[in-house]
Amino acid sequence: MKTALIVYAHQSPASFNAAARDVAVQALTKQGYKVLVSDLYAMNFKASATAEDIKGDLKNPEHFIYNNEMMVAWQDGRLSDDIAEEQHKLEQAELVIFQFPLYWFSIPAIMKGWIDRVLTQGFAFTLQKMYDNGIFKAKKAILSFTTGGTESMFKPDGVHGDINVPLWPLQVR
Amino acid sequence: MKTALIVYAHQSPASFNAAARDVAVQALTKQGYKVLVSDLYAMNFKASATAEDIKGDLKNPEHFIYNNEMMVAWQDGRLSDDIAEEQHKLEQAELVIFQFPLYWFSIPAIMKGWIDRVLTQGFAFTLQKMYDNGIFKAKKAILSFTTGGTESMFKPDGVHGDINVPLWPLQVR
Repeated sequence: MKTALIVYAHQSPASFNAAARDVAVQALTKQGYKVLVSDLYAMNFKASATAEDIKGDLKNPEHFIYNNEMMVAWQDGRLSDDIAEEQHKLEQAELVIFQFPLYWFSIPAIMKGWIDRVLTQGFAFTLQKMYDNGIFKAKKAILSFTTGGTESMFKPDGVHGDINVPLWPLQVR
Repeated sequence: MKTALIVYAHQSPASFNAAARDVAVQALTKQGYKVLVSDLYAMNFKASATAEDIKGDLKNPEHFIYNNEMMVAWQDGRLSDDIAEEQHKLEQAELVIFQFPLYWFSIPAIMKGWIDRVLTQGFAFTLQKMYDNGIFKAKKAILSFTTGGTESMFKPDGVHGDINVPLWPLQVR
């Protein structure tokens, strides 16, 4: 079954972001998708990358390096349940929609936490498998977001400059 | 007294980031600075922007808009204690150093949370006072960070492209 994942980060069910999420769920369901939603604030999703993300003993407790510990924990199936669950959703999804209000020219911290914690090396990329050769290269992603400013403010000659610059690392290549 | 603030985000006291922080504290102290450090992981700093950041009643509980609620709460002195404390540190500092390991081409989520939560409209900027005319335009800021890759990977012709592109919104203008 075609599956989509909406990673959603707004605090209020009355928001435009919530409405955009709901319309996406409806439209995708109509097209035959199974739609999964990760409502980060409602889930009280943990944003910070800490040793609690790993079950069992650390490889190097004296010098904790998050990426290295997570890579080993992923290999051994010792990631925390919340991360394992998000990874399971992401694996199923051929389409991922990030729905959020722009905070300081980027995704809100809670969504950055989803990226920092869920996209583990080994699971989401390796040094050999990234970009054009990436593990998830067949998936499509959409950034759907609201801003606190007008369109003209985010144009190349606007006060904030071209919105594509800060969003570059989030954009699909 | 000259004051510096180091906003620091690494989990391990044995890390290179911790060493860089310590050297900065020593060097700045020697130069006559009072040095404040916000050790975000050690403080268990809350990263997510939620209604808990506001004391007392919300202006519009039916439709929570973080930025608007925070702006009013700041005016009324009703921001949560952890945010008020960071704002107090930031006000004093003429130099701010962000010390972090690069996570997904940007600051770790816990530091993005510091920016999302502490830099309240009214306190840190207004629609009239931003950029060259910004409230904190006299302060200096330094991004001091480590990467998981080599320098050549972050050059314009490297696999990740020019590091200045994703860092653009964080860079002082």
